[in-house]
Amino acid sequence: MHTVDLNADLGEGFGPYHLGADAALMPLLTSANIACGFHAGDAMTMREAVAAAAKHGVVIGAHPGYPDLQGFGRRDLSATPAEVTAYVIYQIGALDAVCRAGGVRLRYVKAHGALYNRAATDRVVADAIAEAIRLVDPSLMMLGLAGSQLIAAGEAAGLGTAAEAFADRAYARDGTLVPRSVAGAVIHDTEAVVARALRMVTTGSVTAIDGTDVAIRADSLCVHGDTPGAVALVRALRTHLDHHGVRVSPFVR
Amino acid sequence: MHTVDLNADLGEGFGPYHLGADAALMPLLTSANIACGFHAGDAMTMREAVAAAAKHGVVIGAHPGYPDLQGFGRRDLSATPAEVTAYVIYQIGALDAVCRAGGVRLRYVKAHGALYNRAATDRVVADAIAEAIRLVDPSLMMLGLAGSQLIAAGEAAGLGTAAEAFADRAYARDGTLVPRSVAGAVIHDTEAVVARALRMVTTGSVTAIDGTDVAIRADSLCVHGDTPGAVALVRALRTHLDHHGVRVSPFVR
Amino acid sequence: MHTVDLNADLGEGFGPYHLGADAALMPLLTSANIACGFHAGDAMTMREAVAAAAKHGVVIGAHPGYPDLQGFGRRDLSATPAEVTAYVIYQIGALDAVCRAGGVRLRYVKAHGALYNRAATDRVVADAIAEAIRLVDPSLMMLGLAGSQLIAAGEAAGLGTAAEAFADRAYARDGTLVPRSVAGAVIHDTEAVVARALRMVTTGSVTAIDGTDVAIRADSLCVHGDTPGAVALVRALRTHLDHHGVRVSPFVR
Amino acid sequence: MHTVDLNADLGEGFGPYHLGADAALMPLLTSANIACGFHAGDAMTMREAVAAAAKHGVVIGAHPGYPDLQGFGRRDLSATPAEVTAYVIYQIGALDAVCRAGGVRLRYVKAHGALYNRAATDRVVADAIAEAIRLVDPSLMMLGLAGSQLIAAGEAAGLGTAAEAFADRAYARDGTLVPRSVAGAVIHDTEAVVARALRMVTTGSVTAIDGTDVAIRADSLCVHGDTPGAVALVRALRTHLDHHGVRVSPFVR
Repeated sequence: MHTVDLNADLGEGFGPYHLGADAALMPLLTSANIACGFHAGDAMTMREAVAAAAKHGVVIGAHPGYPDLQGFGRRDLSATPAEVTAYVIYQIGALDAVCRAGGVRLRYVKAHGALYNRAATDRVVADAIAEAIRLVDPSLMMLGLAGSQLIAAGEAAGLGTAAEAFADRAYARDGTLVPRSVAGAVIHDTEAVVARALRMVTTGSVTAIDGTDVAIRADSLCVHGDTPGAVALVRALRTHLDHHGVRVSPFVR
Repeated sequence: MHTVDLNADLGEGFGPYHLGADAALMPLLTSANIACGFHAGDAMTMREAVAAAAKHGVVIGAHPGYPDLQGFGRRDLSATPAEVTAYVIYQIGALDAVCRAGGVRLRYVKAHGALYNRAATDRVVADAIAEAIRLVDPSLMMLGLAGSQLIAAGEAAGLGTAAEAFADRAYARDGTLVPRSVAGAVIHDTEAVVARALRMVTTGSVTAIDGTDVAIRADSLCVHGDTPGAVALVRALRTHLDHHGVRVSPFVR
Repeated sequence: MHTVDLNADLGEGFGPYHLGADAALMPLLTSANIACGFHAGDAMTMREAVAAAAKHGVVIGAHPGYPDLQGFGRRDLSATPAEVTAYVIYQIGALDAVCRAGGVRLRYVKAHGALYNRAATDRVVADAIAEAIRLVDPSLMMLGLAGSQLIAAGEAAGLGTAAEAFADRAYARDGTLVPRSVAGAVIHDTEAVVARALRMVTTGSVTAIDGTDVAIRADSLCVHGDTPGAVALVRALRTHLDHHGVRVSPFVR
Repeated sequence: MHTVDLNADLGEGFGPYHLGADAALMPLLTSANIACGFHAGDAMTMREAVAAAAKHGVVIGAHPGYPDLQGFGRRDLSATPAEVTAYVIYQIGALDAVCRAGGVRLRYVKAHGALYNRAATDRVVADAIAEAIRLVDPSLMMLGLAGSQLIAAGEAAGLGTAAEAFADRAYARDGTLVPRSVAGAVIHDTEAVVARALRMVTTGSVTAIDGTDVAIRADSLCVHGDTPGAVALVRALRTHLDHHGVRVSPFVR
C-alpha cells in the first residue's frame, strides 16, 4: 500500500494580519509547517496554530525563515552560515516551547522561502540548517526538496529526512523545480495536479517539462492555502488519493 | 554559613551593537540573565552569551522582555495577559534551544525592565509570566523582586522561586524599591553598597530610606555592568563577601 | 448648506499582508489617513495607498502611531513626550516624501490608535504631537477627536484643526466616547448610524448614552472599512447625506 | 586651489545603542551621512545627529539602507527595484522631516552598505535609487563611489552628483575598490593614508594595488569613526590637507 504525507505552511499571520486558510486546510493535512516569527508568525499566532494542529492531530514542524517580515522571507539575504544556524536554532526553540506549552511535540523542521530555495542548491547553507537541527535535537527530522542539498545535508548530519514534492509545479529533466518565472512552471488545472500527485506517489516518477520521465521521492506533498481555489484543490487531492488506495499519513512515525 | 547568588543582565547587544561589560562581568557572577531577542539580544548575541556563561560555569536564565527594541524594554506596554504569556513562552524557548545547542541547560527565568516592574506589583501580569514558565517547563525557577507579586505568582504556580535584592537601591519602609526618580534612590558609594549587601545576606534586613529596618529575603543580589565603575563595584562586592565568609553560589542547586 | 468630511484609515497592510477595504472605501471618502510604517504600512504599501488617494482626489493625511506593528499601535506605550515628537516627525516625513514622489501634497495629521486615545486626554502627549507637526510644517492641519486635548494642543500650537466625530460610537454626557468595553458603546444598526451622522452634521449635537443632548463639532466623520458590512454602511451614509443636502467635502480647503 | 569634502556615516546608533564617534568626528567633517532608521538610526538618534551637524555647520545627507537592523544593512537583500525606490523615498522623507524640524536642509543622499555596493555595479539598482531621489526632490545631490553606476545613474536622472574616494582602501587597476577579503585591501598606516588622500585630491590619481596609476575623481573623501584610531586618522588627514593648501569644504555649494 502506498503512503504519502500532505504538508502545508500555516500560522503565517502576524499581529492583526491573517494569511492563508488555516482553518479550512488543517483538517486535510498530516503535517503543518508553522512559521516561527522571522518571516511571519508572532507568539500569539504560533500558539493558535499549534492549538489547531493539536486539535486535528496534525504533526507539527518548525518553518524557520530569514528575518524579513516585510519581504515574507522570500528575498534572498546574504547571511553567513553561522547566522543561518543561529536563526534556525532560535526559531526551532521558540516553536518548540509553544508546542510544549500546548502539550504537543515538535517533530521536524522545514526551511521557508528564500532560505529553503538557497539551501536546496547551496550545500553550505543546507549544512548550516542541518547543524542547527542536530545541535538542538537530533531526533527532529528535516523536510526538504526531494533530491536537493537539504536532504543530503540532513543525511550527512545524521538526521531523519523526508523528501517533498510539488504536484502543482513543473520539474526540469534533472529533477529540479522549473522557476516560477518560466511559463508553465505552475500547474493550475486541478485534474492534472491530482493525476501528477497520484503518479508521483504510486510510481515514484513525474513527467518533466520536456516530456521525459524523472524519478522523484515523494514522502510528502506540499499543498497551499493562500490562493483562490487552493483549498478546493487539496480536498480534490485527498479524495483522489483515498479513492486510489493511497494512505495519507504523517511522514513522522 | 551564609550563601548568596550574584546575577546580572547579559547578552544585551543586538546585531552590530554592544552593551554592558559581559566579558569582565561573567567571571564574577553565579547567574546570568540572558536577553532573548525582544528588548535586546539577537540569535548570534545569544549564542555568544551562552557560550561565555558555559565557559565560566555560570547558571543561565532567560531574561524575557516586551517586544520593544528601541525602548530596550523599559517602557510599559499595555499587552494583555495572554500576550505576556505568549511572549514569555516564545523567549524562553528561543534561549532554551540556544542553551541546548551550546550543551548547557536553561534553569530559570527573570523578567526584564518594564515587564519586571509591572509584574512586581500587578498580580495578573505576574501570573501570566508564571503560567508561561509552568507551561514550558515547571522545573524552571522564577527569579523576582523579593516580596513582590512575581514571587507570589511563582509560588502559586508551583515554581521554585528565588528572591533578588538590590544593594545599590534604596528601599521604602514597605520593602519596595524607591523609584529611580526620587533623590537618593540609587546608592553610588561602593563602601555603602557592599556594606548593605553584606547586611542583607547575613541578617536578612536593610535600612530603609526613612531609617527604619526592613526585612528582606536576598537569595540573589542583582549587579550591573552597564555604567562606569560598575564592574569595579562587583569586584569589590565579591571580595567583601568572600572576606566575611559569605559563599557566593548559584541559587539554582 | 451643511458640509462634512468623511475620513478613514487606509494603507494599513504590511508586506504581504492586507487589511481593510481600501479599494472599495477610497471612492467614498474625502480624506485618507495613511499609515506610516510604525503601527502598519510599509514603504510599498504607502506608495500604493497614496496613488489610490491621488487617483480619487482624496486628501491625504499622515496617520502616525506607536512603533508596535504586532499590536497594530493599539497598545499604550509609555513613550516620553520627546519620543512621541520624534516618532511623529519621522512618520510625517516618510509619508510626505511618498506624497511628493506621487505628485500630491500631504495636508494633515491624525494620530492612530493608542497614541490618539492617549493624546485625546493627556495634554502633554497631545502637545508632543502638535509640536512635531508645527516643527515639520505648520501648514499641516491636525485632525483629532472633537473636544479633546488634541484639538486644544493643535490650536495652542497655531495649527489649523478639524474635529472628528464617530456616528457609530456612543457618547457620554461630557462629550467623550464611551469605551468599547461598555455595552452599547458601538452602534451597529445602519439606520441609527446614518441618522446620528446627519443630526451631528446638521444640528451640531448628538444624543448621549444617558439620553441627554450633547453639543459636538463634526468637521469630519470617521468611517471604517475593516469589518463586515462596513463599506455598505459608508455607502448608505453618503447616500443619506446627499439626500438630505449635506455636502461631503474635504475639511482641508 | 584644490578643494575636497570630508564625509562620514553618523547617527548609526539605535535606541539604547551607540556606535561610532559622532561627537569627536563632527567637528572634522564637512558632510554627514545620517542613518534613516532601516539599517541603523531611530527617530531620536536622527534628531540628535541632525542637531549636532547643524551646530557644527556640517552639510546633511540621507544614508538609506536595506531594512536589516540586525545585519546593519551590510547583507545583500534581493529587493526589487520598486522596493529599493520605495525604501529610499521613505528614508529620505523621514530624515528630511527631522532636518526641517531642526531648522536645517537635507542636501544629498548616499546609499549605505550592501545597497551602496550593489548599486555601485548594478545599474538597475542604481537607477532605482536615483529615481527615488528625483521623485522626492531633484535638487538633492547623489554622493556615490567615483566611477560607479551610482554616479552614472545620478547623472542620467539629471541629479547633481559627487564622487567619493577612499584613501584607506586599495584600488584595482580598473578603478574599483579591492574587496575587503583581499590582503592589503585596507590601508592602516596613517602616513600612507594621508599621502594617498593628498595625491587623490591634488592630482586626481591613485596608485593601484598592482602599482599602476589610476585616475580618480575625488569630490569627497569618506572617513570613519568606528574603529580605534579612526578619529586620530581623520585629524591627521585634516591637518595634512590644510598644511598642503587643500581647502576642506562641502561638495554641496
